[in-house]
This record gives sequence, structure tokens and C-alpha cells, in this order.
Amino acid sequence: MFIRIDKTAGTPVYRQIIDAVRRLIDEGAVPPGTALPATRRLAVSLGVNRTTVVQAYEELQALGYLASRPGSYHHVRSRIKEAEFDPGRKSAISWGTASTPEASRIHRRFQDFNAAAPSPAAKRRRLIDFSGLTLDPRLYPIGDLRKCVDRVLREGGGASLVYGDKRGLLPLREELARRMRRHGVAVSANEILVTSGAQQAIDLVTRMLVRPGSTVVVESPTYGTALPLFEFNGARIAEIPMRPDGLDLDALEGLLRRRRPAFIYTMPNFQNPTGITTGHAHRERLLGLCLRFEVPLVEDGFEEDMKYFGRVDLPVKSMDEHNLIIYLGTFSKALFPGIRLGWITADRDCIERLVAIKGFSELTTSLLVQAVMERFCREGLYDRHLRRLHRVFRKRLTAALRAMDEHFPPAVTWTRPQGGYTLWVRLPKRVPEPEWSAQLESRGVRVSPGRLFFSKAGRSRGFRLSISGCDEEEAREGLARLGRALKDMFPTVQTKAAAARSKDAS
Amino acid sequence: MFIRIDKTAGTPVYRQIIDAVRRLIDEGAVPPGTALPATRRLAVSLGVNRTTVVQAYEELQALGYLASRPGSYHHVRSRIKEAEFDPGRKSAISWGTASTPEASRIHRRFQDFNAAAPSPAAKRRRLIDFSGLTLDPRLYPIGDLRKCVDRVLREGGGASLVYGDKRGLLPLREELARRMRRHGVAVSANEILVTSGAQQAIDLVTRMLVRPGSTVVVESPTYGTALPLFEFNGARIAEIPMRPDGLDLDALEGLLRRRRPAFIYTMPNFQNPTGITTGHAHRERLLGLCLRFEVPLVEDGFEEDMKYFGRVDLPVKSMDEHNLIIYLGTFSKALFPGIRLGWITADRDCIERLVAIKGFSELTTSLLVQAVMERFCREGLYDRHLRRLHRVFRKRLTAALRAMDEHFPPAVTWTRPQGGYTLWVRLPKRVPEPEWSAQLESRGVRVSPGRLFFSKAGRSRGFRLSISGCDEEEAREGLARLGRALKDMFPTVQTKAAAARSKDAS
Repeated sequence: MFIRIDKTAGTPVYRQIIDAVRRLIDEGAVPPGTALPATRRLAVSLGVNRTTVVQAYEELQALGYLASRPGSYHHVRSRIKEAEFDPGRKSAISWGTASTPEASRIHRRFQDFNAAAPSPAAKRRRLIDFSGLTLDPRLYPIGDLRKCVDRVLREGGGASLVYGDKRGLLPLREELARRMRRHGVAVSANEILVTSGAQQAIDLVTRMLVRPGSTVVVESPTYGTALPLFEFNGARIAEIPMRPDGLDLDALEGLLRRRRPAFIYTMPNFQNPTGITTGHAHRERLLGLCLRFEVPLVEDGFEEDMKYFGRVDLPVKSMDEHNLIIYLGTFSKALFPGIRLGWITADRDCIERLVAIKGFSELTTSLLVQAVMERFCREGLYDRHLRRLHRVFRKRLTAALRAMDEHFPPAVTWTRPQGGYTLWVRLPKRVPEPEWSAQLESRGVRVSPGRLFFSKAGRSRGFRLSISGCDEEEAREGLARLGRALKDMFPTVQTKAAAARSKDAS
Repeated sequence: MFIRIDKTAGTPVYRQIIDAVRRLIDEGAVPPGTALPATRRLAVSLGVNRTTVVQAYEELQALGYLASRPGSYHHVRSRIKEAEFDPGRKSAISWGTASTPEASRIHRRFQDFNAAAPSPAAKRRRLIDFSGLTLDPRLYPIGDLRKCVDRVLREGGGASLVYGDKRGLLPLREELARRMRRHGVAVSANEILVTSGAQQAIDLVTRMLVRPGSTVVVESPTYGTALPLFEFNGARIAEIPMRPDGLDLDALEGLLRRRRPAFIYTMPNFQNPTGITTGHAHRERLLGLCLRFEVPLVEDGFEEDMKYFGRVDLPVKSMDEHNLIIYLGTFSKALFPGIRLGWITADRDCIERLVAIKGFSELTTSLLVQAVMERFCREGLYDRHLRRLHRVFRKRLTAALRAMDEHFPPAVTWTRPQGGYTLWVRLPKRVPEPEWSAQLESRGVRVSPGRLFFSKAGRSRGFRLSISGCDEEEAREGLARLGRALKDMFPTVQTKAAAARSKDAS
């Protein structure tokens, strides 16, 4: 039996033994009934401690690979034969025909999005990546999280592993309601629905309000991943342009005079992708329009906690005396996206109706995850993390804007956000996609091409830059590379005045 | 400042101090600027260790309640005033009118289901509860789970907290594929989609295949919580009766001759609610019908791992040479439901289409949860847990059946499952609901009324018993109570022969 151990590898030695033996058995190299070497002998031949081998054999027994005779783990067990996978097997069902038209369309959109994702080759080339919108994992408070999980399981035991309240764990909803009240939004735990991330929240609201042919109004550009979801649920998309101060409200009013959409989807803070934050007057007029035309407003507060420059603007929801705003919150942007936790705050009747859809379509969001995040907030760890994040990103954004001022050609303009992660770069003319992205990647830098943020292709002449994943040094180097590429493309000598027009959005 | 400490409470003392101070500040009893007592003084007056008070003050500082001057945490900070919740505030939107008809219907169904749930008063009365389908939390391997979470976070760090592959974590899909192959189902990781529980899997399949007016064929009785979800997605339900040996295939064939359903939903093992397991010949004929009429079969293997008596029947999916079965698996029944992890195994093209819907509607299932469960399986802890569960439930089911033989009147019959948690009790005549449930509860016992498992009310004259949550002693006592109630209702003296007809299903 040939086993190779690498003591310098990150994997513990006993685990390497287990994996090696499993592979030998799974591949049939060591048939059932075979006697494995005695633990002492194997330990000597591998040059490891005997207890390491004993530990490995015990686990192999637990896994069902070795026979469980007391005191002896030495024989390979005869196991139920695994069925053999045949990749050539065809299906009697044509899934494309069986699928609904909406399902077929979302499938095509998924393939488009996947085509835009970094290739494994690109990942290996160690690009400086401005395309993600995930917080730099180097900033994750893993130790704090570990502590919380451990406490929840130690103190709560099985309580966090059963089915829970379909609205979400009550102490977490209370915590979220308290956080919302600090943002000026007057709600109690009854107006909160915990979701498996904000994306699920968008889906739930859409499933409740959109019928075939309904219109959903979005900012243009907007969060691109929501668009196929709106369409999958039967909506037609109406795009209203973003201007430097936010959604074009005159255009919106014009549209509302003609038809009544199912809802309007907006991101008032650090809009994705432009980074634009709207002011108080804009928020008041937007809310007034919704009230006048009786249209629900879906406010996506995905980066509510990421204000680290300038004055604090309260959510539009804080002015919502007529309960027509459905507010979406999430832990994915300021913390970890992989934990999948978000929430909806809205009128109680609206929440009750959303709970029904969620309750039948998913039962509950992982109770363990909810209990852990409740603990994380209650112990003040989330607030402490936010303070740290604000310090870090004040520096990062400052460094990024300085690097852009230094390296970008005058023909190019960009937004200057007061927080969040993204800014929008506007090019003097349209560039051919995806050739242009490939060109940038060959120069070691990656951005999000503008077309991803529009419902109709060909509208964009810009791209999104996200500083969520790189530190100051990386940002400076990456933006210098990007600046060189942009200068090669737009070499025209212009006055510095062009740079002053840097607040244009689209 | 008045703080009361209970040293005998489960909550740590420092946590009690924190909660008390927060409450005082939140309620305005202690205004901003107030000086809190020095740590030493408070420690003496509460009779606790000074470090306990220091720890509490430090956390209060982290939470933003106390001013963070170096070396002093003594002043209540002036904080952004929390908005005040006004429960009387009305909405300008009529959410009932704004909702789609399907959303309104699922809302009504949700209210029905909630009405059937145990009232808090009933919960306090310490009923013996045969209505849940959640594994007894006393059997949860919490220690093993804690170990896995800790290892995942310690060794993997941030890797388990980012967005992941939308199909699910590759090592988990490989583990699940291996488990499926052991059940005779020949698949690779590419034919697996990880879901947030089996309920989400049902939703995804329905969203892909059901268009308005489509028919979904279900067993009658069936898993009741799936029915409102099918209808929400636009399906009409066709119920085919369960017979003692499974779905009535003659009736199914008759239906398939008349129309082509979007899919057939079946549970071949320990069917919920009847506990019936179909034999090989039944499975072959069912699959043959699906192939002949080109109808996808959705096989819900929710208790695949819970065979603890008799011979092992492989899933229908193991015979599926033409890839028309969409198989659903879950960790919710044999392990913890609150973790929310399930999977779908189907033809690769079908999986690709389901991934698109899932990818846009939820992005991914919690990566942390996936990484933890992968670890749990890989280390053999799941298999070890299953072996323990089988030992426990062999005894529980035996004790339950014996108690029913002893205490139930001859007019009542029931199924005798070979595993799983549920059995179906058939009454000699229909009983009025919910009065009957209330009557049983007043006698200290709770079951699942039969109407919950039918699409149309009034079909049922039975109920479901689940032994998932009670030990042998509780089962014996509960079934004796139930037997007395049944004898009072159906006092007719009959021969023991009636008990022999105990395999009837409906």
C-alpha cells in the first residue's frame, strides 16, 4: 500500500492518511477484505507518530471504510457498490421544451453572466480586480464570528437547529428593528422579515407584486443581477436614467402619468453601480411621487452602514409616513456575503404577505446563521467591525481617487462617492465588449463592463470600479495600469477642464 | 442606577449588567452625559467581581452606549435618537389589491396553516406531541457540529464567507454525489445542485416546469406544505389516491392518457404522511409510465437515510436510465432542519436550468453552512450519527407499534412503516376538525389532522402520527392517552380481525 505524506502541507498528517486510503479503496486498488498494515508498522514506514495512524484508522472505520471489529480496524470492509456514473446518458425529457419561457430566458441570461465572470486562467494571472463587490476577506472578523458560533451552539444547543419562526428569529428581528430605528426608520420586530440575503428579498417582493406584463421601474444603470429576476417573474423593465443627483424624477413623473408600475426599485445611497447618493430634496420628491401615484417604492439599502465620508443621509424609509416603502437590508456588503442574511422592513400587512410566500417556498432562513448574527450584533461586534471598516475605506477611497486623478486621461470622467465601494467611470465613446475587457485583462486589471447594468445592451459607455477587494497599494497599482490602458485608447490631449465634469453619471 | 443581578440565571453576570444598562439608556431613564458608577463601586454594590463590571463596560463602549475616552467608560454617549415606532400608522398602499391573486391565495393558506399550529398555551401544557416531523433535539450531535464549524473557520478562514459557486460548494457536491452513488444513483458533482433545504428544491423545480394552468400530480394524502407552493406557481393539483402499496398506478395511467402534467411528485420511502414504502415492481411500473408519457418524476427522498428495518429499497432514481427523474435530498429529517441544506440530483441540462433560477433568485446557499456540512460528512460524523439514529428509532418504532396494538380500539387501523418517523391512522368515520384536535389536546396529546395532507378539505378520515420527537417512554404514555381518547370516540366492540386490516392507507 503506497501512501505519500507531505509534512509541510497545510493538511494534517492523519487527514492525508485518511484521504490516501479512501482513494485507494474507492479506486479499487485495495479490494474488500484486504488487511491494512498494523498501526505501528505504518507509523514507522511513514515516519509519523503511531497515535496519528490510530486516529486515521478510527476515522476510516467511522466512515465505513474499515471493518469495525473491536480492537482491530485492519480490514477493508465490503461496501455497497457505488453506482457508476455514465456521462453519455441522454434524457428522455427535453428540458428546454419542458421549461416555461421565463425559465428558458433566465437560463440564457445566466449563461451571459457566466461568460462575463473571470476565467480560471484570468484568476491565475493575479489580476488586480475591481469587478467584485465583496468585502476584502482580509478584513473579515473571523475570530469574532468563531466565538459567536461557539457560544450559540454551546449555550443554545439544539435551539438554533430546529425550524424557527418563519418571520425570522425574534431576538434578531428585535436587533434589526433597533438598528433600523437608529437609521431613523420607526419599526418594531413585527415589521421585519429575515431573508436569505437581499437577493431573496428582491425575489419575494417581485413574486408578491408582479403579474405578467407588470412594469418594474429601475434606475439606469442599476444592479444588473436584479433585472433577469424581475423578468423571470413576468415583469417588463422600464429604465429611467440616472443623473448626477440621482434618478431623473421628471422622466419618472412622465412615466407614472402614463402607467402604474408594480413598484420602483431604487438605491439612494452609493447606488450600484454609479456610487451616487441622493440628497434630501430628491428623496422627498421621489417619495411624494410614489404617494401621489400610489406606487410602492423598493428601497435597497445594501450599503446603509457604509457611510464613511460627509454627512449622514437617512433612508427614504425614514420619511415614509404612509408605509409605502419596502426597505431591503443586508449583511452581505459590510460583512460577509457567504453567510446569506438580509431583511425586509415594510408595512406589517405587507410583511405578513411576504412571510407567506417565504414560508412556503423556503420554510425558514438557516436558524443557526440567524442566531450567530444576532449574537454578533448584540455583543457589539458588528458596530466595532463597522468602525474599523470606515477607517480602512476612508483611506482606500482617498487613495483610489488620488490615483485616478493622477493616471486617468482627461477625456475620462468619474463619480466621487461619499462611501460604499463603487464608482462609475464614463468614457468619451462606446467601446467594443467583450474585446475591451480582454484587453484590460491582458494588462493585469479587471473592471465590470457597463453593459451588465442595463436592461438593453449597447446603452453603456462606462464601467464600474469597485474598491471593495483591494488595499491601498493594490488600488494604486491597478489604477495606474488602468490609466495607461485608457490613455492608449483615448490619447487626445484635452484640457484639465474635462476632469471637472467628473460628476456625470451615465 | 438600579441594576438587579440574578447569579442563578443561565445568563452570565456581565451580560446581565450590559442588558440592564442598555435598557436604562434605551428607555431614557439614564440620559446622555450621565456618569455611570465607577467599576469598583458598582462591583461592590452588586457583589460581583470588578473584572466582570469592566468587561460589561467595555462591551457597552463597543456597542456605542458609553463614551470612548481612553481609560474611562463612564459617560453615557449622546447617540442618534432612535425613531419612534407608531403602530397605528396606516399604509397608502392596499397590499391585498397590489398583490397578485396567487400571492393573496398563498397568504390565506399560510393563515390556515398557522391556525393549525400549536398555540403558545398548548405548548406550555406540555403535550406529548406527535405532530412535528423534526428529529428530537436531544439526538442532535451538537458537539460534532461545533467541532466542524470551528475547523472550517479556523482552517478555511474567509473562504467559507464569500459568494460561492452557484451550483454549491464543489467538495460538498462531490460528497453528495458519492452518497447518491452509494444509494445506487449514478451521478457526478455536475448533476448536483445544493439548495437551502428541500422546500426550496420543490420551489425551484416548480418555477422551472409549471406555467399557468399546468397540472402537478400528487399522492393523496401527500406532504401538505408543498400544495400551496404548487398552486402559488400557477399549478392545478391532481390527487391520485395512495393505496397500501403506494400511489394507485391504474388511476395515474388513466390520468396520463387524458393530459400531460408538468410533473408527478412522489415519496417512495416512508411517504409523508402514510409511512408507506413502495416495492421494486411498483417503482418499475411508475418509472415506465413516466417514460411512456414523457413526464418528469420528482422523487422526494426526504428520509432516504432513515431505513432501519427490513431490506433496503434503492431510490427510483437508481433505475432512471433515461434521466427523467428529478431527485430531492435533504439533511433536515435525519439531522437538523434549522441548518437548511438540501440538494437536487437530475439530468445535467435540467440542473443547469435550475441553477439559473436559483442563481438569480438567491445567489447562493450559505457557504458557511455548506462548508460545515461537507466537513461533517467527510469526517464520517454523519454516518456515525445515522448508525446511532437507526439504533434509537428501531426501539422507538417498536415501542410505538406495541403501544398502539395495546391501547388503540379495534375500529381504528394504521400503517406499519419500515423506517422513517410517520404512520397514518385511519378512523372508522370522519371526525369534525378542529374540535377533535382540541379534544385530544385537552387530554394531553397532539397529532397532525388529516386535512393538512389533502388539497381539498373534507377528504380525510385519518391523522398522521410522528415519532420523531419523543422517546420510548413518551411514546408509550402519549399513545395510551390517544388510545383512551379513541376508545371513548369509537367504543363499538369489534373483533381483533379489524386490527389485521392495519395496512390500509387512506
